[in-house]
Amino acid sequence: MLKKNILLTISYDGTGFCGWQKQPGKRSVQGEIEEALSIVCSREIKINGASRTDAGVHAYGQRVSFESDFGIPTERLQTAVNNILNGGKNYMVKFGDVQIVAVEERPLGFHARFDAKAKKYIYRISNDPEIDIFRRNYVYQVVKPLDIDHMREMAALITGTRDFKCFQAAGGEEKQTTVRTIYDIKIDTGKDIQIEITGDSFLYNMVRIITGTLVEAGLGKRHPRSVTSVIDSGDRQNAGFTAPPQGLYLAEVYYDMI
Amino acid sequence: MLKKNILLTISYDGTGFCGWQKQPGKRSVQGEIEEALSIVCSREIKINGASRTDAGVHAYGQRVSFESDFGIPTERLQTAVNNILNGGKNYMVKFGDVQIVAVEERPLGFHARFDAKAKKYIYRISNDPEIDIFRRNYVYQVVKPLDIDHMREMAALITGTRDFKCFQAAGGEEKQTTVRTIYDIKIDTGKDIQIEITGDSFLYNMVRIITGTLVEAGLGKRHPRSVTSVIDSGDRQNAGFTAPPQGLYLAEVYYDMI
Repeated sequence: MLKKNILLTISYDGTGFCGWQKQPGKRSVQGEIEEALSIVCSREIKINGASRTDAGVHAYGQRVSFESDFGIPTERLQTAVNNILNGGKNYMVKFGDVQIVAVEERPLGFHARFDAKAKKYIYRISNDPEIDIFRRNYVYQVVKPLDIDHMREMAALITGTRDFKCFQAAGGEEKQTTVRTIYDIKIDTGKDIQIEITGDSFLYNMVRIITGTLVEAGLGKRHPRSVTSVIDSGDRQNAGFTAPPQGLYLAEVYYDMI
Repeated sequence: MLKKNILLTISYDGTGFCGWQKQPGKRSVQGEIEEALSIVCSREIKINGASRTDAGVHAYGQRVSFESDFGIPTERLQTAVNNILNGGKNYMVKFGDVQIVAVEERPLGFHARFDAKAKKYIYRISNDPEIDIFRRNYVYQVVKPLDIDHMREMAALITGTRDFKCFQAAGGEEKQTTVRTIYDIKIDTGKDIQIEITGDSFLYNMVRIITGTLVEAGLGKRHPRSVTSVIDSGDRQNAGFTAPPQGLYLAEVYYDMI
């Protein structure tokens, strides 16, 4: 059989996972998908995810690639794998917490992570004075009022190509450079405050630290314009707190220039 | 110290619980609340819940009573217990799955369950053709289109004072009579289909079996008017399937006649 390179789009609720990456004895998104794919393809499948999301972080559009000479037609992969991820025949009543939403073929050599040109993350904040326990795993609930204008003023000063070392948490993989390009930070309001951040790539916990810094601006704890000197300092200590994982969604991975 | 009788209003996300009732080695809503109350009151507290909801069933307004001569002022109970239920100092970032929403004093002898005059349950159905994994624990996702007019026509024939034996699942507590009064079944549409059922009391799984029967009418699998003969038969086999727990919410418990 000919080898194919498959690119999957995956959606998951990160609540019940130790994160994207496999860890011994823990339930990971990568592990669940590899297990289901290996059953469906009748061979061991190892996948590459575009983003290694942390425990509690969600995804609408995680991208995953793998090469294999499996026999099942590509167009049947999604239903077969989702059946397993949904726990088999119960799927009409209750669904699993991870799903394949799209399958496509790519040329051999394509890699979901290394070939990614940009990513979009969404961070969702509920700014209601009342706590909603039903949303505790899906939004960051800030009960004190946030000043959106201040958050937007600060966000505009963060976009661009800069050394974002101040927004990098310890514990991630060693990077050659901490220079990144943030194309856009859009802050929408409605039921929630939704922060959309698009960039070429992101440092460890970068979106959550940017969000924490924006929240501190929104609470009046730091001046919007102070962020420039925070970035210039290159010092994590000067940036804001790391916003909690449950508000973060990997929204899209782009493979063509945007 | 004088003995007080306390009536609590409790909200919970049933996803992570074995149900309301304590079961050895399992995490129950009753167990979590009793544990937190016992710490706050510095004595063993045993509570009575108005409704013994099943695993996965949620509550906006579960009611709970207990009598005790605890020392802490009644008005401080809510904050102190919620602090424990929210896992202590992390509560500004992430919240627990059970919360006290109100505390009031009642005369000695009052009992949250025995004194309940009526209850309102809400059953929530998402009728979107696309599955939303983020709502899998909070709505019943029916992907085939439901005919709401048929569901409403059937619902109107269910209200009233009747022997509802056909809507009683096996496994519940033995009841003296299976005659109940359903005051109202209201079916609202919007983002979700929301079925509100108000009645004097309910048999085991009654709301979920009524919902399953309504869904079968909505799918065209049974005629709306056929429900009358189902009720007359008194036979569980003739009613519809038991709708899954995650769509069900105990909304309100009434202590005065409605």
